[in-house]
Amino acid sequence: MAISFSDILDADARIRPLVRETPLLSSHDLDALVGAQVLVKADCLQPRGSFKMRGATNAILRRRGEAVARGIVAYSSGNHAQAVAYVARHIGAKATIVVPADTPMAKLDAARRDGAELVTYDRATESREAIARGIIDRTGAILVPPFDLADVIAGQGTCGLEMIRQARAQGAEPDAIVVCCSGGGLSAGVAVAAGELAPEAQIYLAEPEGFDDFARSIAAGTHVSNPAASGSVQDALLTQTPGQLTLPILAAAGAIGLVASDAEALAAVALAFTTLRIVVEPGGACALASLVRARDRFQGQTVLVTASGGNIDPQTFIRALSK
Amino acid sequence: MAISFSDILDADARIRPLVRETPLLSSHDLDALVGAQVLVKADCLQPRGSFKMRGATNAILRRRGEAVARGIVAYSSGNHAQAVAYVARHIGAKATIVVPADTPMAKLDAARRDGAELVTYDRATESREAIARGIIDRTGAILVPPFDLADVIAGQGTCGLEMIRQARAQGAEPDAIVVCCSGGGLSAGVAVAAGELAPEAQIYLAEPEGFDDFARSIAAGTHVSNPAASGSVQDALLTQTPGQLTLPILAAAGAIGLVASDAEALAAVALAFTTLRIVVEPGGACALASLVRARDRFQGQTVLVTASGGNIDPQTFIRALSK
Repeated sequence: MAISFSDILDADARIRPLVRETPLLSSHDLDALVGAQVLVKADCLQPRGSFKMRGATNAILRRRGEAVARGIVAYSSGNHAQAVAYVARHIGAKATIVVPADTPMAKLDAARRDGAELVTYDRATESREAIARGIIDRTGAILVPPFDLADVIAGQGTCGLEMIRQARAQGAEPDAIVVCCSGGGLSAGVAVAAGELAPEAQIYLAEPEGFDDFARSIAAGTHVSNPAASGSVQDALLTQTPGQLTLPILAAAGAIGLVASDAEALAAVALAFTTLRIVVEPGGACALASLVRARDRFQGQTVLVTASGGNIDPQTFIRALSK
Repeated sequence: MAISFSDILDADARIRPLVRETPLLSSHDLDALVGAQVLVKADCLQPRGSFKMRGATNAILRRRGEAVARGIVAYSSGNHAQAVAYVARHIGAKATIVVPADTPMAKLDAARRDGAELVTYDRATESREAIARGIIDRTGAILVPPFDLADVIAGQGTCGLEMIRQARAQGAEPDAIVVCCSGGGLSAGVAVAAGELAPEAQIYLAEPEGFDDFARSIAAGTHVSNPAASGSVQDALLTQTPGQLTLPILAAAGAIGLVASDAEALAAVALAFTTLRIVVEPGGACALASLVRARDRFQGQTVLVTASGGNIDPQTFIRALSK
């Protein structure tokens, strides 16, 4: 396996105070709705609004000297880009983010304000990996991919470490852990943390309906892809196929797939507003939405749920609240 | 003075784990907008959505035996009612809340779900204090008023204790603390905590424009009242005159008044959404709004700000985001 539990402990010591210990929230109303004790890990409260801060910080600080001397390269059009730019600014390193030319620039505003250089490419004719490689060959910059790197997975695993410890401090023992899943960095990190700290807890992967490549890949025993690369409001969760490092970890952990439709994700955004008073983006609400949809199988259990990101524009939030 | 610093330390030990240590949040974008280091205490993330949990929990647990045996009485149409009902349910005590007959019932849904009995009265012809006294005479129930009780003020003071300690853990030393202020329970508690832990920090009271009875009472050296009892979207902050116990504490602390208009409070609700990803109600955003309005006097400072409540209906939130 790409990482061990001790890698997560190392990451946990490395990433403070750039990464917050986010609260584990709960609500009687939410418990009553689901029929379970629901504990929500509010990683939307990280700087730049997502758990991506954890993996980006760990990967960059592990190679801080190189990063400052030669720069950092990442490809992402969303939360990972924002996290990399934030960490780079903090340590005084140059960040270059490779983004599709058709990305709405509003999504990259924060990364630009943090001083990142944006390099655009044409999705149809160019490869982001090739462009990143070109920059690295020229500058010696370090590459921080969004999920398929041991240091990134170990960093995301600190989310699992925190939430299991926080649950115990509240006197709760998890029966299940539901994690928002795209490339699988967060899910794999959480699975490794849980394997050590709460081996009885069942890991569930939450994916957008129609974009359940991870569950299908586990079932098939090999990498399968989603038919489409876009078309869901859960835009943070549309990676087309599982990572090389993350799939074996989650297959070995016996992870079970859940799904949520876009309407269910938007309803979960509203539910988090009403019951927890946090701002969650649709992809970040996929785990909560999947739990609500599949609540029959969680009756009476204690369930940890990630609210993994909160980068949502006002229009989409209004849409969620107006339903 | 009604309370000392050691009362706050006692309260802090008493109220866990019913009351959360809420996070102290920050944002580069918010800092840039204000021109100061802004650290926001997200007490909207308490169970039932406000700092009122602190004082209610302290006051009730201090007299737990009596509360369970004979019940609890409170008068409030808002966040304090919800907090009292929540704590009562938790310890198995009966709560009776005295509310104006014209209170929108939606505001009391949570208290009803927590099993509180609601006793209504006519604002024009009846006195809530007299009704509460009648219940107490009949049942021996304990009274938990919203602010003018030492145990309540000491409980609210734990918010100040936490935020000053959390700021230091982040390497920040507060120059100023801006607190949402209505009856003054939170402000007075925070002022006592700061008097011990950060005596150099200036305390500012944030009140809705036109409802600045506290600042005017400090200036006058006696209790003065607001001309109106309603008419602001900052409904959590419309107490008509300062408390008997809270005014002397804040006058002695040299607290300075700030104000925010309703439009400014709604803009601060949207600002907290965008930069911090928390849900704050207009009254809970008054401190942030006042800071933004008066930012010229805070340039280069480190400022702690309370986001004291998050009980806002979707329609008002949509209104804030639509501006």
